Amino acid sequence: MKKSFDTEILCVGTEILLGHITNTDARDISEMLSKIGINVKYHTVVGDNPERLRRCVEIAKNRADILITTGGLGPTCDDLTKQILADAFGKKLVKSEREAQGLYEYIRTGRGLTPNTYSQALVPEGCEIFHNLWGTAPGCAFEAEGKHVLMFPGPPKECVPMFRHYALPYLKKLSDEVIVSHSLQIFGIGESAVDDLFADEMNRMTNPTMAPYAKECDCLLQITAKAGSEAEAEAMIAPVAAHVREKLGELIYGEDIECLEQAVMALLQEKKLTFATAESCTGGDIARRFTELPGASAFFKGGVVSYTNEVKTALLGVDAQLLEEKTAVCREAAAAMAEGVRARLGTDLAVSVTGLAGPDGDGVHEVGTVFIGLAASDGTWVRETHMGTFRTRSFIRRMAGNHAFDMMRRWMCGLKVD
Amino acid sequence: MKKSFDTEILCVGTEILLGHITNTDARDISEMLSKIGINVKYHTVVGDNPERLRRCVEIAKNRADILITTGGLGPTCDDLTKQILADAFGKKLVKSEREAQGLYEYIRTGRGLTPNTYSQALVPEGCEIFHNLWGTAPGCAFEAEGKHVLMFPGPPKECVPMFRHYALPYLKKLSDEVIVSHSLQIFGIGESAVDDLFADEMNRMTNPTMAPYAKECDCLLQITAKAGSEAEAEAMIAPVAAHVREKLGELIYGEDIECLEQAVMALLQEKKLTFATAESCTGGDIARRFTELPGASAFFKGGVVSYTNEVKTALLGVDAQLLEEKTAVCREAAAAMAEGVRARLGTDLAVSVTGLAGPDGDGVHEVGTVFIGLAASDGTWVRETHMGTFRTRSFIRRMAGNHAFDMMRRWMCGLKVD
Repeated sequence: MKKSFDTEILCVGTEILLGHITNTDARDISEMLSKIGINVKYHTVVGDNPERLRRCVEIAKNRADILITTGGLGPTCDDLTKQILADAFGKKLVKSEREAQGLYEYIRTGRGLTPNTYSQALVPEGCEIFHNLWGTAPGCAFEAEGKHVLMFPGPPKECVPMFRHYALPYLKKLSDEVIVSHSLQIFGIGESAVDDLFADEMNRMTNPTMAPYAKECDCLLQITAKAGSEAEAEAMIAPVAAHVREKLGELIYGEDIECLEQAVMALLQEKKLTFATAESCTGGDIARRFTELPGASAFFKGGVVSYTNEVKTALLGVDAQLLEEKTAVCREAAAAMAEGVRARLGTDLAVSVTGLAGPDGDGVHEVGTVFIGLAASDGTWVRETHMGTFRTRSFIRRMAGNHAFDMMRRWMCGLKVD
Repeated sequence: MKKSFDTEILCVGTEILLGHITNTDARDISEMLSKIGINVKYHTVVGDNPERLRRCVEIAKNRADILITTGGLGPTCDDLTKQILADAFGKKLVKSEREAQGLYEYIRTGRGLTPNTYSQALVPEGCEIFHNLWGTAPGCAFEAEGKHVLMFPGPPKECVPMFRHYALPYLKKLSDEVIVSHSLQIFGIGESAVDDLFADEMNRMTNPTMAPYAKECDCLLQITAKAGSEAEAEAMIAPVAAHVREKLGELIYGEDIECLEQAVMALLQEKKLTFATAESCTGGDIARRFTELPGASAFFKGGVVSYTNEVKTALLGVDAQLLEEKTAVCREAAAAMAEGVRARLGTDLAVSVTGLAGPDGDGVHEVGTVFIGLAASDGTWVRETHMGTFRTRSFIRRMAGNHAFDMMRRWMCGLKVD
């Protein structure tokens, strides 16, 4: 890239200024942009107010080369972004027949048609339209006065996939330098430990660079290279990635994937195996996470959410006396749950979770005490975790799920399971 | 408040612009301010760069009455906020002996002393110091040129409690007006239809105001009033809320809550009822959503994720011949699943979901075809939905869950269920 593109992300929405919602769009867009070497210099949030929005657009026009907006594209009367951005660059809004037709189809299949809905089909003249596959309001991009303007709807479930799908290819074309980035996904060691392990290398490196990022219950190392071609950038990354793999070994569960369940699905496919779940404190989250992945039905037969002891006994065959004597939060219950669901559903593998996700305890165990089981043809394993009483319910549930997937992964890779 | 105080929150930190961390400070401060009637008009994020920060401060000085900064108060060399804010208002930094002493004590008790650490004891001359009880860097506030400037450290664990402890009392003294806001949660009608229904009122209203917001699979109407007292503001909101309730009736599932499952939990508590789930295409998401709520175990006994027909027959007793003849995606299967899990787990209510979340179809039904069942002591109901083939897997699953919770809610309220 000859030129460095200073970028501003301008988010439009009074609900952000009222603190009702968190501005995750700005974070997610920033993260995606940093991976392709585009520097975000400013985030701005302004309410659904034409005059203030207009002034923010003027400021952004003066200080940024790329202006990305989120929000204010929907059909309601406080949606103004397209009009004001078009005005700022001397453009008119014109109706996109294709978008209008799409909206008609959308409305026909169920939700209410209102006069306002059609305003979503208006776009700045001459723009590139980003058809919204995740909602209704289209996004768009245009170049004017030496600036690039890209607009996206505000809801993160629309904004983030649209940005990935449309904006990244659009922006990559602006540069004649290629940035390639690969990430190695890590479970079983924290971000600061990773940081410590590679501090020397990271301080020395300028291109490629390497940086650890914490995720909610795991972490990753991102290796990024800039070069004249993709092949060149890949060749710069390869030895660094090999070095990291050598140092972290089996703690690495994947490359360029999002989560442990994806690694597990790939292994189930490779080994032609099926599994089932028996969940107590995770309440169905492991099944839910795996079935978020398209194609899950080839590997996942089903599961039981045994939120009470009666259900553990009735549907999983866990010994009622065991539960009476040792409560459901113990090694034996986790083992019996995994074995029970494996036998009943006839799967190759089965995982189970039983523990205390809090905030309330049971008077016996500390919140954060969770047992995770894995049953297979050659044995049953149980991991005991104590995540700490200061952890949130949602963290404990997600971390327990990660352990379950990690145990499956390790079993399928022939590694130590518990 | 004689005067309305326009407020800008300026967050300093390159890590926010890289997308490594989410700007929760701005959200949390905004939420606290909106409750005391202070209007946040802008959020800005800028990196640890003196020149850009200086320009952002100039802009904020021009457009805001209150400028709140977070970040850039620590000891590292890229912490510049105090210096630049002091400069912008023609002030010098002076050493606070009390803070220097405090830092000495802090360092003595363990953490590393660096020459930079003492820079934290420097504050703008004449300011009010906010001693940091949650970390080391103090915050501060001063009034100059008719503006109020308040500075806080960036880490949320310090920023948020310091803001609550110091800034709220400081700012409340400036105002004699309060803002009160209530939201009505709506399911069964889209945001644009709500907008249409109330367009006249919304255009006419200035105080209180009313605005619809879309959520992923439902929406809400926010009503906000400014007045001299909380009671007065509540009295202004009451007739508006009553009018909305009259117009939307049973489509409103809650007030000031987040989601349908919260409304369902409140009703289960009121009616002393329990429930169970039988999930196919939602894959455990309904159980997961309900068990995200602390205290879920009093109402939710458990569920079955029957991702294959064998599991539907083995664990739920669904007739294998029915599944063979009509596939699992039909009204009868949804009814049998709900009845099966209700009987096996002995609950008052049971919900079921069977359908196609996509992206792949089954060659028979369109993706987005989902049947949602409710079994109770007095009957079984099934809702048939066709969400459209353009919907994402994740949308279809969430919407199916919303229908299940909505059917429970309606049954418990004595409304038409299907």
